[in-house]
Amino acid sequence: MNSSSFVAIDDINKQELLDLLERTRYFEEHPNSKILDGRVVATLFFEPSTRTRLSFETAVNRLGGRVIGFSDASTSSTSKGETLKDTIKMVSNYADIIVMRHFLEGAAQYATEVTDVPIVNAGDGANQHPSQTLLDLYSILKTQGRLEGLVITMVGDLKYGRTVHSLLMAMRHFKPVFNFVSSPELRMPEEYIRLCDREGIEYHEYTDFSKEVIDSSDIIYMTRVQRERFSDIMEYERVKNLYTLRNAMLDGSKPTVRILHPLPRVNEINTDVDDNPKAYYFEQARNGVFARQAILTRALGIDPLKL
Amino acid sequence: MNSSSFVAIDDINKQELLDLLERTRYFEEHPNSKILDGRVVATLFFEPSTRTRLSFETAVNRLGGRVIGFSDASTSSTSKGETLKDTIKMVSNYADIIVMRHFLEGAAQYATEVTDVPIVNAGDGANQHPSQTLLDLYSILKTQGRLEGLVITMVGDLKYGRTVHSLLMAMRHFKPVFNFVSSPELRMPEEYIRLCDREGIEYHEYTDFSKEVIDSSDIIYMTRVQRERFSDIMEYERVKNLYTLRNAMLDGSKPTVRILHPLPRVNEINTDVDDNPKAYYFEQARNGVFARQAILTRALGIDPLKL
Amino acid sequence: MNSSSFVAIDDINKQELLDLLERTRYFEEHPNSKILDGRVVATLFFEPSTRTRLSFETAVNRLGGRVIGFSDASTSSTSKGETLKDTIKMVSNYADIIVMRHFLEGAAQYATEVTDVPIVNAGDGANQHPSQTLLDLYSILKTQGRLEGLVITMVGDLKYGRTVHSLLMAMRHFKPVFNFVSSPELRMPEEYIRLCDREGIEYHEYTDFSKEVIDSSDIIYMTRVQRERFSDIMEYERVKNLYTLRNAMLDGSKPTVRILHPLPRVNEINTDVDDNPKAYYFEQARNGVFARQAILTRALGIDPLKL
Repeated sequence: MNSSSFVAIDDINKQELLDLLERTRYFEEHPNSKILDGRVVATLFFEPSTRTRLSFETAVNRLGGRVIGFSDASTSSTSKGETLKDTIKMVSNYADIIVMRHFLEGAAQYATEVTDVPIVNAGDGANQHPSQTLLDLYSILKTQGRLEGLVITMVGDLKYGRTVHSLLMAMRHFKPVFNFVSSPELRMPEEYIRLCDREGIEYHEYTDFSKEVIDSSDIIYMTRVQRERFSDIMEYERVKNLYTLRNAMLDGSKPTVRILHPLPRVNEINTDVDDNPKAYYFEQARNGVFARQAILTRALGIDPLKL
Repeated sequence: MNSSSFVAIDDINKQELLDLLERTRYFEEHPNSKILDGRVVATLFFEPSTRTRLSFETAVNRLGGRVIGFSDASTSSTSKGETLKDTIKMVSNYADIIVMRHFLEGAAQYATEVTDVPIVNAGDGANQHPSQTLLDLYSILKTQGRLEGLVITMVGDLKYGRTVHSLLMAMRHFKPVFNFVSSPELRMPEEYIRLCDREGIEYHEYTDFSKEVIDSSDIIYMTRVQRERFSDIMEYERVKNLYTLRNAMLDGSKPTVRILHPLPRVNEINTDVDDNPKAYYFEQARNGVFARQAILTRALGIDPLKL
Repeated sequence: MNSSSFVAIDDINKQELLDLLERTRYFEEHPNSKILDGRVVATLFFEPSTRTRLSFETAVNRLGGRVIGFSDASTSSTSKGETLKDTIKMVSNYADIIVMRHFLEGAAQYATEVTDVPIVNAGDGANQHPSQTLLDLYSILKTQGRLEGLVITMVGDLKYGRTVHSLLMAMRHFKPVFNFVSSPELRMPEEYIRLCDREGIEYHEYTDFSKEVIDSSDIIYMTRVQRERFSDIMEYERVKNLYTLRNAMLDGSKPTVRILHPLPRVNEINTDVDDNPKAYYFEQARNGVFARQAILTRALGIDPLKL
C-alpha cells in the first residue's frame, strides 16, 4: 500500500490519530488558504453520497485546490464496462490525489495497489469510512475536552453500521466504556465484542434504550436503522420506534452529553431534539470539512504548520 | 428571514431594485475579478435547470469564488429520505451562501428559517424566480434607456408563468402599461389584475396577438405555453400556434421594441426572428451573469464599489 | 467557421499539427500555471464520456481556468426540448470557449456556425474526436522520437472506430506504412483505402493478427470491438478473441514498439500486457491533458511561449 493513502482507520495508530486531530484543529482555525494551489483532487463517487462529496469538495476549494470527478457511476466510463483498475490508472494521470467512494468492500485498498497516487477512502461498501471516524473523534474531543475514559452509547443498527464499527476501533485507544443499544438482529458483531474482551474494554449490551443508559452517557451516537436490513417489515416498524431519540428522553442526562449522528437522519432522532443544546449532529458535519482538510494534506505530504 | 437572503422580488422595494440594477451595470463593466476569492457558493438544484445553474456558476467563477453542489436531486441525499431542513443545515456547514432551486413553492423561504447562511432563490416551483426578474429588468433598462412609462406586452402562459408574475411585480414601481395576451384558460390571475386596479396601473387583456398590440409595444415578453397545462390536447395545438411570434409580425413595430424570453424557447418564437435586431433573448441571458453577480455580492454584504 | 475552433483533424495542416505538438510538449514541461486565470471553459457533454471530460477539466484547472458545464444531457435544458442552436447561444453568453461532446455527427461544426465563441470538438458521433488524435500523435512522437516513416498497425474495429480514421488522416503527412488488421465486416472503409492509394501511402490489409505483423510494427493501435456492431453474436465472440492482444504475442516484437489504445479497454488487451514496458496506453492518456492544454490555448489565441 502507498504509505500516504488513507484507507482504513485500523491502519492508523494512536499517535497518528492524535496528529490528525491536531491537524484538524489547525484547519478549524485556518479553513481558508492557498496551500492546495495548483493541486488537482479527483472525487470519484461510484455510488452517490452528497454529504461526503460536498464536504471533501469544500475542504479542497477552501484550500485553493481544484476538483475533478463524478458524482455517479452511471455517467462514468464504468458504464462502458471499464474495470476499476483501468479507471484508477486513468484518473491517476490527471489528479494529484484520488478521493473515492465505492459500493464494494476493499475497493479503496485495491486502488492503492494499482497506482502511486494517494488514495483517500470516502467509504467502501459496508467496510470503512475513515474520514467519518476522524470527524466523529474530533467532535467528541471538541465537545468533551478529552477522549480518555468516556461513556459512549451507540444506538440503532450496530450490525451493518460501518460508522460505529470504525468509531469503536478508533476509541479503543482511549479507555472508553461502551453501551451497545440495539435489537437482537442488529447487535454489535461478534468480532468487535471479542476485540473489546481481548483489549479489556468495558461494554454493555442492551435491547432497551433506557433512561439509565442515556443518563450515564457522555456521547450518544445514533445511527439509522434501514428498512432494507429487515426481512420482516413489521419487525422494522417496531424496532424503528424503539430506537428513536426524543427530546423528553434527555431530561435527566448529563449537561455535557452530546448527540452525534453521521447523517442523513431519517426518523431516528425526533426533530424536537434539534434545538436542544445537547444536539451536536449539524455542528459535527461542519467538523467534517476540517477533518478532510487534515486527511488530504497529510496524504499529500503537506505540513500546514511548516509552510 | 435572514435579511441578506434574496427570496422574492416582492420583498425588494424600488430603491433596492435600483441599487441592484446599478450593481448589475457595475458587473457588466467588471465581470472578472477576485472579489469572491475564498468564498464557497453552494448551488443546490433539487430540480434540473441548466441555464440558471450555469449562469450562477459563471457569475461565481468570474468573481474568483468556488462552487460546490448538485445539479439533480436524484444523486443527492434527498434520495435517502433526508428532509429539506437537514440538507440545508448540512450545506450551511460548507458554504458561505446557498443558491437553491426547488420544485416546491416556498422552499427558499423555508430554507431561510432554518439557517443563518444567506439563501438565494433560483426558482421555487411556480412561485418565484427573482434573479430572472432582475435580469429581465436590467435588459429592459439597458435596451430602452429607462424603466418608466413603457408598454410591456406579455404573451403566452400568463397563468402559470412565474416570470411574468414577478416581472409585473417589479415593473409596477415604474408606471407601465401592460398588455396581457393569452387564451382565456391561461389569462393573468385575478390577484395580479386586482393589484393593477388597486395601484392604478393601466392594463389591457387580449386573446388576439394582434398587429395593434405588437406595434404599440416597447417590450414583448414571450413565454412558453406548456403542453402539460392543457387537459385538451387539441386546444393546446390551437393555442400554441396563436401565440407564436414570427418575423413578419414585427414589420410595423417600433424600431426600439425588443423581444424578451426567459428561455428555453420551444416553438413560441420562430427561428426567423433570431437575426432580427429586435430579438434580444440571447443577449438577455448574458445579462443574467451580471445580475447574479449583483445578487450574490449583495447577499454576502460585499460592496464592489468600496473594495 | 470560426477560425480558432478545433473541430476536425482534417482541417489542420501539417505545419499546424507540428505547432500543436510543440505546444503539447511545452505543456508537458509546464502543466501548472495561471495562463487561463479569469477564463471560463464550458464542457458540454450531451453524451457521457468521463475520460475525455476529466482530461479537459484537468487541463483547464491546471492552467488556472474555471469550468462550468454538464456531464449528461438528461439533466440539461435539452430535456426541455431546447435546440442545439439555443443551447450553444445560451452558453456562449457564459463561457470564453466551449468544449462539446455530442452524439450527432456534425454537431461541433454546426455549433461553430451559430456562435463566435471558439468550439472544441470533444467527439461528435462516429465522426471526429480530434483531441484524441493529437494525443495519439504526441504519444507516437514521444515514444518513437519521430513521426516519419513508421509502421503503424491498427487492430480491431476499423470500420466504425473514429480514432483510427482520424489517426490515419493525421499520419498521412508523415509517410507511414499502415497495417490494417480486422475481420472482413470491420475493415477500413473504402474512402480511407482510396485516400492511401491516391496519396501513395503503403498499406496492407490482414484478417490475421499474425506474428509477422506484430514483429514489423513500431506502433500497435488497438481498438475496442463493440458487441453492438454485430448482428450475429457468435461472430462477435469469434472476432473478439481473434483480435485480443496477449503478452506472449509480443515476444518477438521490436524493443521500441509501443501499444496504444484510446481507452476504455474491455477485453481487447489482456491485462498481462499491462506490466510490459511496451504497453503505453495509460501514459498515453496522461498525454491527453497536455494535448488539450495545447488545443484550448490555441483556440483562445494564447501563446504560452510569449506570455
